Amino acid sequence: MSTKVALLGFGTVGKGTYNALTTNAAEIERKTGKKVEVKKILEINPKVIESGYAPKELFTQDFDAILADPEIKIVAEIIGGMDLAKEFILRALRAGKHVVTPNKAVVAANFDLLHKAAAENGVQIRYEASVGGAIPVIETIRKSLVANRITKVEGIVNGTTNYILTKMEEDNISYADALKQAQAKGFAEADPTADVEGIDSANKLSILIAECFGVYIKPTDLDRTGISKLTRDDLRLAVQNGCKLKLLASAERLEDGTINAFVKPTQVPMESPLSTVRNEFNAIYLHCNMADKILLTGRGAGKDPTGSAMAADIVDLA
Amino acid sequence: MSTKVALLGFGTVGKGTYNALTTNAAEIERKTGKKVEVKKILEINPKVIESGYAPKELFTQDFDAILADPEIKIVAEIIGGMDLAKEFILRALRAGKHVVTPNKAVVAANFDLLHKAAAENGVQIRYEASVGGAIPVIETIRKSLVANRITKVEGIVNGTTNYILTKMEEDNISYADALKQAQAKGFAEADPTADVEGIDSANKLSILIAECFGVYIKPTDLDRTGISKLTRDDLRLAVQNGCKLKLLASAERLEDGTINAFVKPTQVPMESPLSTVRNEFNAIYLHCNMADKILLTGRGAGKDPTGSAMAADIVDLA
Repeated sequence: MSTKVALLGFGTVGKGTYNALTTNAAEIERKTGKKVEVKKILEINPKVIESGYAPKELFTQDFDAILADPEIKIVAEIIGGMDLAKEFILRALRAGKHVVTPNKAVVAANFDLLHKAAAENGVQIRYEASVGGAIPVIETIRKSLVANRITKVEGIVNGTTNYILTKMEEDNISYADALKQAQAKGFAEADPTADVEGIDSANKLSILIAECFGVYIKPTDLDRTGISKLTRDDLRLAVQNGCKLKLLASAERLEDGTINAFVKPTQVPMESPLSTVRNEFNAIYLHCNMADKILLTGRGAGKDPTGSAMAADIVDLA
Repeated sequence: MSTKVALLGFGTVGKGTYNALTTNAAEIERKTGKKVEVKKILEINPKVIESGYAPKELFTQDFDAILADPEIKIVAEIIGGMDLAKEFILRALRAGKHVVTPNKAVVAANFDLLHKAAAENGVQIRYEASVGGAIPVIETIRKSLVANRITKVEGIVNGTTNYILTKMEEDNISYADALKQAQAKGFAEADPTADVEGIDSANKLSILIAECFGVYIKPTDLDRTGISKLTRDDLRLAVQNGCKLKLLASAERLEDGTINAFVKPTQVPMESPLSTVRNEFNAIYLHCNMADKILLTGRGAGKDPTGSAMAADIVDLA
């Protein structure tokens, strides 16, 4: 008996999720004894449907039929965006389906609402892929560090900005030129606002704060400064100070319980392993009262890395 | 209702496990809704019993009573050594208790035997703490990378030797002097053979191979070279080649399914993040077909870091 999954959307991460579940089906079965099968893919773009990436008979345009299918236990929301994604997640939860999503914007903006809807319907909402892509940060916080008081979480959680800052410093080029390179490589979008202004990092930091400290702070309530006004001189000055300039997302839980959090360009000392994280890579540094410091590094975005994290949540729910 | 646990032995890791479960009981309950309680501690040393680290009434010298207690569902083996530890683990499994252990030597030497005994008795044997201390490597391989084919695992999995090599290179001192420093700091034992000859690393590599590739290779069958014959010149030569000399534990699964594995001093290029792991820290680098490369870094030994990993397994079993 296999567990049946529906994918909502078949863009980059949809394909990555499908790829991870199908290409590595034998690995999944060896490690867990479980089979996971994509039963339906909600997608309206005929080009995508005809692309041959997945069998044509899997595709549907009927979301209600997915919700009404008692065999489908898990729904992966991968359409992106805000309002429709939120609506699809809520409808799936209310139909008694577990939901897995990489959508940091929707999760961060609606953290309590989504968890409440999941709890009320006896299902789970999971979002390992929403922070750090392939990096197992949520699993590590929840499971491996369960017997720890996490005192601080710091991260480079946006690959676009880390790529731009790395290029500005190493190649001594301007912000505008580095952004163009990032766009040419597919690391930055045509409208880079959400990345370069730190909005994406703030969404991820909001989720990390909730997971580490059990406190929800809306991403729009977080102190946030982006990288769009940085110059080569700022990067050079950091190096002169024995540091690297990084867009850091940081949250510390003080002794009195208050949380000191920000997203901003920060001079990270060379002694900190975060200073060594280059290009599009992400890293999350967890400070704990038992485990001491744990650093997790890997790819924070991309089709297969994000698909890997989506598939991990899906298999765990199965 | 709380889940009851027995600790076998109350040395360094025993105290760390107790500390993680008691100091962070509120964190554990917040994250999981579960209570875990140490009901008994098997310990014969009166000094330890009288030390005040744990209430005296928890201590017992009666292992049979622990096995016969239906309330105790989980047994943590922390006595160390080989034969007695193995016997205790097997007796606990056969009594229907889950077993958690940091004992890499026993797990690596008896991998199939212990897993068979666990399966036959409908319980689990868990050993997150046996590789990389606080680093969540087993959890990451089993859960977060479940939908990946892992192609290669490389690690610095012995803090003693990494400390010695770091000191030899950075302070330009001999192997003998660096070993003395490590012993003075408590990073090396009076008889350092198991660490410096790579035996400890081979035990951990055997476990990593089994977890990553599903193949058990006895640690004594692994190619193994230690660090005791290295000189300052070897360290210097590595730096001249743009590398750092590290005691690497490495295993690669080739296309034809064969596994190429070794423990040996290796020139690690500066571009590899493993080259930046200094002093007593450990790191494990996983190469995967979906997640790409994941690097996990942290403390590979010590009372509280190892206790953190023991407690994670215990809470997960609860």
